[in-house]
Amino acid sequence: MDGMLVIISGPSGSGKGTVVKRLDPTLGYAVSISVTTRKPRVGEVNKRDYFFITEDEFVQMRSENALLEHFAYVGNYYGTPRFYVEEQINKGKIVVLEIEVTGALQVKEKFPEAVLVFLMPPTLTELQRRLVNRATEDAVTIEARLKRALEEIPLISQYDYLVINDDISVAVENVNAIVAAERLRPHRNKKVVEDFTDSQVKMDYIKLTL
Amino acid sequence: MDGMLVIISGPSGSGKGTVVKRLDPTLGYAVSISVTTRKPRVGEVNKRDYFFITEDEFVQMRSENALLEHFAYVGNYYGTPRFYVEEQINKGKIVVLEIEVTGALQVKEKFPEAVLVFLMPPTLTELQRRLVNRATEDAVTIEARLKRALEEIPLISQYDYLVINDDISVAVENVNAIVAAERLRPHRNKKVVEDFTDSQVKMDYIKLTL
Repeated sequence: MDGMLVIISGPSGSGKGTVVKRLDPTLGYAVSISVTTRKPRVGEVNKRDYFFITEDEFVQMRSENALLEHFAYVGNYYGTPRFYVEEQINKGKIVVLEIEVTGALQVKEKFPEAVLVFLMPPTLTELQRRLVNRATEDAVTIEARLKRALEEIPLISQYDYLVINDDISVAVENVNAIVAAERLRPHRNKKVVEDFTDSQVKMDYIKLTL
Repeated sequence: MDGMLVIISGPSGSGKGTVVKRLDPTLGYAVSISVTTRKPRVGEVNKRDYFFITEDEFVQMRSENALLEHFAYVGNYYGTPRFYVEEQINKGKIVVLEIEVTGALQVKEKFPEAVLVFLMPPTLTELQRRLVNRATEDAVTIEARLKRALEEIPLISQYDYLVINDDISVAVENVNAIVAAERLRPHRNKKVVEDFTDSQVKMDYIKLTL
């Protein structure tokens, strides 16, 4: 069966990371690996945690349209390399990309066959509770994140699926159902259809065996 | 959650009827009920097995575009009434319509939000075996059915999903996954999104509670 790219996206605090960690690799999931120009931290392994590249290499990849999306963060560049996604898809893998909303829509533009999943917190109150519980951000940042979430919600109409992350197990089950269904798309099963319909041969076969 | 229309279609002998019988009604499935101008047989109940109608009523429904598809068979008319499908969808039901390929494509044209599932036998040999095992048709009819199946296979590209019916339990599971995924479509969850984003109210709420 053909592989595919699944994008798990949604507002900060929607639980993207948690959902992605819970996807069972035995079902064929492979997490996308980003390129970055920042130096590896202790314990980080090239080609496992990131593809560590130089700024020149990054600039070249970007100019060659070899990145599905990219951004800068505290002086370093990050991006999603197309080659890795395509390599894994060709192996039949379901490549999972966890990414914020703007990046997700960028990827969909460059890779239209990607399946876009919007992960949504059940309520604004719950989103606020989660952001407060992280205890890593002050009230001003949290307020900004909540407002941003409200701005991102209308973009759901550009997504393929909406998964509400209330109960994490249900959310993971829903992502699995989406992937199971998307694997059944006709355009992902051209080989199956071709094998069935090698028509002239089959017509002769019918005549011979009846 | 919003209901929907799911069409289970495919060649004669693909196992449409068996799959539909195995769909669990506790999951919200409701089988579509046809209109017919033929007389009820012993044991058949109006509004359960069919909507039994007169020929005048049929002609009127057809002219009012009240039928999603229709056909004649040994002097009687049959059709899928739009009102029943819509009534069940409004109740949140997953209306299942088991129908051959031409009819399925007719329905999709009149009811584009329908989800079209093509049920395919695993191989031509297996399809032949099933048709022969039915023991209701002669070799000429079986040959015609097999040829027809080969003509129908390329129409898969007009379908939303392709389910191979090799193991019936797997086929049923796949239909369930398709339905689970399709329920997560943004356009079937407009209420959920609206509830989240009643924006000005929410903005004020953020300011008040932080």
